[in-house]
Amino acid sequence: MLADFLDRRAEEAAQCGHPVEATEVLRGLLCAGVKRIRPALCALGWACAGRASVPAPVVRVDAALETFHTFALIHDDVMDGSSARRGRPTAHRVLAARHAGHTDADRLGTSSAVLVGDVALVWSEQLVRAAGLTASQLAGVFPVLDVMRTELMYGQYLDLLATGEPTEDVAHALAIARFKTAKYSVERPLHLGAALAEAGLELPAALSSFALPAGEAFQLRDDLLGVFGDPVLTGKSAAEDLRDAKHTVLVALALRADSGRYGIRSLLCSRERGTGRIAALRSALEACGARAAVEDMIADRCRQALDALEHPLIDPAAAATLRVLTRSLWSRTA
Amino acid sequence: MLADFLDRRAEEAAQCGHPVEATEVLRGLLCAGVKRIRPALCALGWACAGRASVPAPVVRVDAALETFHTFALIHDDVMDGSSARRGRPTAHRVLAARHAGHTDADRLGTSSAVLVGDVALVWSEQLVRAAGLTASQLAGVFPVLDVMRTELMYGQYLDLLATGEPTEDVAHALAIARFKTAKYSVERPLHLGAALAEAGLELPAALSSFALPAGEAFQLRDDLLGVFGDPVLTGKSAAEDLRDAKHTVLVALALRADSGRYGIRSLLCSRERGTGRIAALRSALEACGARAAVEDMIADRCRQALDALEHPLIDPAAAATLRVLTRSLWSRTA
Repeated sequence: MLADFLDRRAEEAAQCGHPVEATEVLRGLLCAGVKRIRPALCALGWACAGRASVPAPVVRVDAALETFHTFALIHDDVMDGSSARRGRPTAHRVLAARHAGHTDADRLGTSSAVLVGDVALVWSEQLVRAAGLTASQLAGVFPVLDVMRTELMYGQYLDLLATGEPTEDVAHALAIARFKTAKYSVERPLHLGAALAEAGLELPAALSSFALPAGEAFQLRDDLLGVFGDPVLTGKSAAEDLRDAKHTVLVALALRADSGRYGIRSLLCSRERGTGRIAALRSALEACGARAAVEDMIADRCRQALDALEHPLIDPAAAATLRVLTRSLWSRTA
Repeated sequence: MLADFLDRRAEEAAQCGHPVEATEVLRGLLCAGVKRIRPALCALGWACAGRASVPAPVVRVDAALETFHTFALIHDDVMDGSSARRGRPTAHRVLAARHAGHTDADRLGTSSAVLVGDVALVWSEQLVRAAGLTASQLAGVFPVLDVMRTELMYGQYLDLLATGEPTEDVAHALAIARFKTAKYSVERPLHLGAALAEAGLELPAALSSFALPAGEAFQLRDDLLGVFGDPVLTGKSAAEDLRDAKHTVLVALALRADSGRYGIRSLLCSRERGTGRIAALRSALEACGARAAVEDMIADRCRQALDALEHPLIDPAAAATLRVLTRSLWSRTA
């Protein structure tokens, strides 16, 4: 479905004599080793409402959701200046390499990645309209999408503001995780599935009680993997969060626990680029107890999420799948 | 209407404890001394179909169009690294100034301008859905919007690719002008108005015969103003096109006419930042005849556009207004 849509966009571009990079870069990102977490959760939201097999229009909304996510990743990587994603060069790097002979290839790579992201955002919405939904499904789906998209932008903005200036404020780091990840990657995809199933207002509330702790656990795990994870498994460059001094829960807890013993603040804000600084930070995050504290927070949140699945409105078979997902989240390595 | 919409978005942000910058920056851009060309042309597309006064839903689509344009300007200014727009600092400059104390304020300004642009793109589409159109109007409007948005991105991309590497290829410079301006700023807004009026397929074709030459004339005038215009009147920094070596029709004609006499290529590609180089380029563009040739092209295109307005399907009163607009375009100074 997504391949067909991109084929048609590529044909249109060729007819107008337009460059093929936009569709090629999107195809590369959409087909790379992807977890497809948001589409899976959207389909599970549908299943939570007691609906059986997933019909074609819902699959098409899933494709739209993944296209939207590709937009978000492309712009996120531009903003963070990241070089790798899913084990491959990021879109702006691919585009810079493609125009290596240009007077200002790096800038061209960044600018064209902004444009390709914009196109993906427009196309994601076009895919929803072309999904073959009923008028009443469309009326239910778009408000969820509108909220989801606006929340993501604010979450990213909060993240940007705090980057480079980490503090001991754990609550603020959690708020960023809530908007950037828990709502965007877990709660809203489930709500979208429930809206497609026209499930009313109570099921979304029940799903939120699961999604928010599960989504926070997901982000906390991501923070740990960003620091201690194996780049071969995560597909991201090692320790980018530390390099950029991201304000994560892990870092906030470490700054709070440190009281000068490990020198975490000066290690974080140092401009030194060598691996020695990163290794020293890893040891300090471990020694001050922050890593273990984050593991505890993940376990707490996973337990809360599992409890919330005992809700009478949530279809038991779908709840069982969400339980498996939650447990794998607990201990994932990539 | 737009003010109300932004008020509601600002309230939602405040309720979530989100920063207010996104709505403030958009309000600043949407309310600054704006020509509102695209909304005016959309309303004229409606009038061309013989419809009388413009109803509220069409006004709301106009607001959506201006919001979309604000997205395009914000991202365009980021990509071009422009410092002024409409006589004020660009969005990324406003946002950088706002966070002047931040470790990396310039980068934060650019990144948050990308995000604010993204939000404007999402909200522009939300405004169309909330405009109160009938189902059949919506079905007619979205395909025009989809084509318009995709064309704009390709036009911008062609522009980026050619920037810094101007050639004698006048046809390619005209193709960029067609996608970036003639289609986006003139043809599609008129089509949108015709689609709102449910005018069928013949009127849009007739409007294209007017819009494409008029739109090219508009861009050619813009190219001249970008080089010879008064920054106080245009609201843009002086000679940014020359500084960046944009591949415009003016420059392509100059390179073709030059044959080494004026040294235009080396002046264009020089890294020298002083005003001397710009003054020398201005004289050379004049002396080689390129400026006069572009004036001729503008006059030709304005005549073609005026002729195309003699179409029986185009409402005579609306055609009269388009004639006035075309003539003012011929000789505008800002």
